[in-house]
Amino acid sequence: MTGSALPFPLAVSLGDPAGIGPELIAEAWARRVEERLPPFFTVGGAGLLVAAGRTRGIDLPIERIGEPAEAAQVFASALPVFGHLDADHTPGDPSEAGARLALASLETATALSVQGEAAGLVTGPIAKSELAKIGFAYPGQTEFVAAASGVAAEDAVMMLAGPSLRTVPMTVHCALSEVPGRLNAELILRRCMIVARAMQRDFGLRHPRLAICGLNPHAGENGRMGREEIEMIGPAVEALRSEGIEATGPLPADSLFAPRMRATYDVAIAMYHDQALVPLKALDFDQGVNVTLGLPTIRTSPDHGTAFAIAGKGVAEPGAMIAALRMAGEMAERRAAYTRPS
Amino acid sequence: MTGSALPFPLAVSLGDPAGIGPELIAEAWARRVEERLPPFFTVGGAGLLVAAGRTRGIDLPIERIGEPAEAAQVFASALPVFGHLDADHTPGDPSEAGARLALASLETATALSVQGEAAGLVTGPIAKSELAKIGFAYPGQTEFVAAASGVAAEDAVMMLAGPSLRTVPMTVHCALSEVPGRLNAELILRRCMIVARAMQRDFGLRHPRLAICGLNPHAGENGRMGREEIEMIGPAVEALRSEGIEATGPLPADSLFAPRMRATYDVAIAMYHDQALVPLKALDFDQGVNVTLGLPTIRTSPDHGTAFAIAGKGVAEPGAMIAALRMAGEMAERRAAYTRPS
Repeated sequence: MTGSALPFPLAVSLGDPAGIGPELIAEAWARRVEERLPPFFTVGGAGLLVAAGRTRGIDLPIERIGEPAEAAQVFASALPVFGHLDADHTPGDPSEAGARLALASLETATALSVQGEAAGLVTGPIAKSELAKIGFAYPGQTEFVAAASGVAAEDAVMMLAGPSLRTVPMTVHCALSEVPGRLNAELILRRCMIVARAMQRDFGLRHPRLAICGLNPHAGENGRMGREEIEMIGPAVEALRSEGIEATGPLPADSLFAPRMRATYDVAIAMYHDQALVPLKALDFDQGVNVTLGLPTIRTSPDHGTAFAIAGKGVAEPGAMIAALRMAGEMAERRAAYTRPS
Repeated sequence: MTGSALPFPLAVSLGDPAGIGPELIAEAWARRVEERLPPFFTVGGAGLLVAAGRTRGIDLPIERIGEPAEAAQVFASALPVFGHLDADHTPGDPSEAGARLALASLETATALSVQGEAAGLVTGPIAKSELAKIGFAYPGQTEFVAAASGVAAEDAVMMLAGPSLRTVPMTVHCALSEVPGRLNAELILRRCMIVARAMQRDFGLRHPRLAICGLNPHAGENGRMGREEIEMIGPAVEALRSEGIEATGPLPADSLFAPRMRATYDVAIAMYHDQALVPLKALDFDQGVNVTLGLPTIRTSPDHGTAFAIAGKGVAEPGAMIAALRMAGEMAERRAAYTRPS
């Protein structure tokens, strides 16, 4: 297992117990050897995970651990579970008790990762609407982890990564009509610098190549269809280049995700949610990983939701969960070995 | 060859003689048997096509025809060329003479198609900036063909089609900031009805399934991120359904182009240029066909430009030109055989 080079195991939060998170954690552990997964442990859910595994035909051995570091030894023969949090297994039927378990698991897994007792954090899928009911005030787990890490939400940068593509949207959850007003050269520069540094430190790319999308069709055609390329994006690309970053753009988004173009960059910087998420899901559905860049802790997540409708039916695809675990392990190894480029 | 069922051959306009159009027409003719292409003829370019073919190692036999109908007989042994228009072959170096040839070829090929002397029109790629210099006042070939067919530009609907996906953007060449203001329920309804009728008449789908994208991330999440889904797109979907069209939506665009979702519809209706073009080019680059729906004549085009930078180098991919020819032939056959569903 590649995970043997990890300084510590990964901490995994359960996600909503009524969703597909627990069954996918069980499935990932069952495939740990063939998928070369690094050692990980969950925070809570011993009973829940056994029941969730059973829905997929997995007879899941569990071993409780008192310290995260114990997980490395346990992992080969059982799924290590830290702590006593647990809930009933009620697939497809979210409850307040389930939301409380999801939140407690997230809080502890995050804390262990921030404190350095885990090598990184992998979060199972939560239902934001369920967590909101019990007073969770963050737009999502990313913002929660950022706050727990002492990082401003705007400096925690979401990247989507699959086998075909890495992409980072500069704006995320806002109406399309608000996108132009939220963009400016400073924001693009600041976020792209976070991306570039994370590519160096966590992804093993000493000279990462950033391809920056235009906002408008055909990147605006020299101002004929919108001026954001001239006024914001172009200046940000110039500023990145003067910082020594291999940035190109603004480029027409429509051709940027075609195979020949994808070979020319390491990360595509998109201006809004769907400009990044549409190609990622078209190309790498079921395998997309949501990575938070710019944090002192490593954090990944499968890029899918709780999927209440199919929870407990044994049909949820584990590819994204497996990819999130493997990516977090690889990032942690690289970060531990990282020396700043001269 | 499937083309034998066509009532008439297809008319092909050359596109800019300095671009990749002529060499791809030569390549398509050379592959006519293996690619099962219907009979077609070009308007002009006899000398140009021979020279363009030579850059790809093709020894292209040409036969001039005096009437489009002669093309069917000629096609097996030579590329039929209608008329005496021609220009020098200067790959990569556009000129006024070249633009005039491209326009004259387009005008005549369109006229032959509109008059019913050709079964349909396939247009080679032009450079809009070159045509603008000689007074061509249309935004593109689509609008020109619409005007020549007596159809209002807003009723000529662009569809992009590849092996993986058919998609229609409701707005096209405008700044992203202008998209919300250009959309309304009436426009979406009107254009989707044109799409549905074309799917029935030209694509052999008696009950076409239209999947309608939201404009905002996650289709707005019930108004939390934008209200266009509630105020425009949802009502348009309802109106389509009351017209008997199998329309669904508004759907989150980010997951709509994933493989499992693509299996659930025949056409994805996008709200803006990149929402349609990004997935099409990510999935079907080099094979995308631009089809104009809603015209009395059939019209397709390869979904790429003149590519001056690679013209004459023998490397341009012919897949989209071949697909455009095959699709036009299939559409013409279906339209000739079409009877309105009861």
